[in-house]
Amino acid sequence: MPDKKKKFIAVIGGSDASPEEVKLAEEVGRELAKQGAIVVCGGLSGVMEAACRGASSAGGLTIGILPGDSAKAANPYVQIPIATGLGYARNVLVAKSAQAVIAIGGSYGTLSEIAYALQGNIPVIGLKTWALSRNGQPDDSIIRMESPIEAVKIALSLAVDH
Amino acid sequence: MPDKKKKFIAVIGGSDASPEEVKLAEEVGRELAKQGAIVVCGGLSGVMEAACRGASSAGGLTIGILPGDSAKAANPYVQIPIATGLGYARNVLVAKSAQAVIAIGGSYGTLSEIAYALQGNIPVIGLKTWALSRNGQPDDSIIRMESPIEAVKIALSLAVDH
Amino acid sequence: MPDKKKKFIAVIGGSDASPEEVKLAEEVGRELAKQGAIVVCGGLSGVMEAACRGASSAGGLTIGILPGDSAKAANPYVQIPIATGLGYARNVLVAKSAQAVIAIGGSYGTLSEIAYALQGNIPVIGLKTWALSRNGQPDDSIIRMESPIEAVKIALSLAVDH
Amino acid sequence: MPDKKKKFIAVIGGSDASPEEVKLAEEVGRELAKQGAIVVCGGLSGVMEAACRGASSAGGLTIGILPGDSAKAANPYVQIPIATGLGYARNVLVAKSAQAVIAIGGSYGTLSEIAYALQGNIPVIGLKTWALSRNGQPDDSIIRMESPIEAVKIALSLAVDH
Repeated sequence: MPDKKKKFIAVIGGSDASPEEVKLAEEVGRELAKQGAIVVCGGLSGVMEAACRGASSAGGLTIGILPGDSAKAANPYVQIPIATGLGYARNVLVAKSAQAVIAIGGSYGTLSEIAYALQGNIPVIGLKTWALSRNGQPDDSIIRMESPIEAVKIALSLAVDH
Repeated sequence: MPDKKKKFIAVIGGSDASPEEVKLAEEVGRELAKQGAIVVCGGLSGVMEAACRGASSAGGLTIGILPGDSAKAANPYVQIPIATGLGYARNVLVAKSAQAVIAIGGSYGTLSEIAYALQGNIPVIGLKTWALSRNGQPDDSIIRMESPIEAVKIALSLAVDH
Repeated sequence: MPDKKKKFIAVIGGSDASPEEVKLAEEVGRELAKQGAIVVCGGLSGVMEAACRGASSAGGLTIGILPGDSAKAANPYVQIPIATGLGYARNVLVAKSAQAVIAIGGSYGTLSEIAYALQGNIPVIGLKTWALSRNGQPDDSIIRMESPIEAVKIALSLAVDH
Repeated sequence: MPDKKKKFIAVIGGSDASPEEVKLAEEVGRELAKQGAIVVCGGLSGVMEAACRGASSAGGLTIGILPGDSAKAANPYVQIPIATGLGYARNVLVAKSAQAVIAIGGSYGTLSEIAYALQGNIPVIGLKTWALSRNGQPDDSIIRMESPIEAVKIALSLAVDH
């Protein structure tokens, strides 16, 4: 049974991920589990599956918030599938159910999750992902890291109840 | 860590519940946990809280799919809070994330969850809850039970992956 | 351009409707348009299409709140398609965007819309549709009518801004 | 009554907008209406209100897809309020209900709408708004313009049914 004090950290990124992104996601998931955190993700393949696989390998709990109506669409390492049937609107749930977000690579779906997290003042740590600027001024809200271990450390230190 | 074979059973009912409904919900939650099932609910008070309290007392896992943006709104027995921010639209997630639904009392929100479950061919077991008819013909889709133990037994026997 | 004082009335019912339901829906849509109301519906076939066809034949405005991502799925009489991509969760929008709801026949999806409307204190008028009871007591919240003209009259008289 | 051939163009941006953004949005709304397009927006203040005001001044139709449960929250120039009750998840509806999107300024909510549009292959034209890069490579998917008249021209030329 999970401890109420456990942190919920979202790992976001593409379902179609590069080998480097998969490796990063698996290390992030494993380290989150080692540190006692629960992994929240979109439940599908690529970065999501790698993060769940990493977390599972270290005995961690994994939650997959799925776009479709069927829990069967979850990757094999999702332990708690939430079948929303909401399509892309489920992205907001992935971001807002977490106390911090780690973004790894990703395309426009990932960008929507980053945007939702930042809008809710949820810290976003980025590994090889989007960078933002507005009217020619960089927006440094995404905390850029290179190492998955460091990304997890920062995410857990910044995670705040909301 | 939950076993992938575990059943997810939703317990639905009002946030403002009668003492009888609270007692039924707590017994349902406890029995679900004893039988190894995971309790899914709307995460708030009344029937939802009683079901989570019952499940927790027997060492079970509880998921609360919340209408608001904050996990803090969850009752104290929710272990996995999912803050959707979707308002009443979260009702469809409560129904569709389960393999069977047990309805206890409840008002129109509960009725919407019953409707969503039936529409998705998810079995609904009813304890002192809504009854339906259409064009003067009773609709017997809600399986009416009196005993919480029997309700859990039927729910688990009818639960189907989807 | 629609007048801000115009009423928004939802017409709800099945995509697979009987000839009698189609006839009722068309008459309801036509009468709503004659009375200057805007028809809101789920945008698909059956009762939804008939209501839009009736409204269009009398020069009325029609809004279809669609479950999918594509406006092309709207029936040919929808003038304002809203493609939600939300699946069944769009039902709550159909109910809550209206000032009154007229239900004609329908299955569990329609029942979820009735439930959402009643929960939001939005009047529901029923033509050959669901009836409800709770704990053996009839719930008379659905105002049962036989005539489409009368149903529209009552809907417009009860419609309240919210 | 709107012609089925009319284009639906979303105008997105902050509820708290600068005078320059308000002026741009009003000009965009007016020009869209002159060109026969329907304005879709989030229904609130700032850029959304200015776009609706501009469109109304030229006799155009305006749709406001609102985050809350009440149509009363719409700005005074919204003619078709859709009260979703979905909170921030309504952003996906604003983006996906349009055939092209014009972004003016904006914060993270606007960024989520840009992301949703790009993900659905809906053209995004930007006036003084976000710029994106990924892994150090600029992403030029947002078509950057300076003039509201030109932005409307490009939006209408790129708008595609979906």
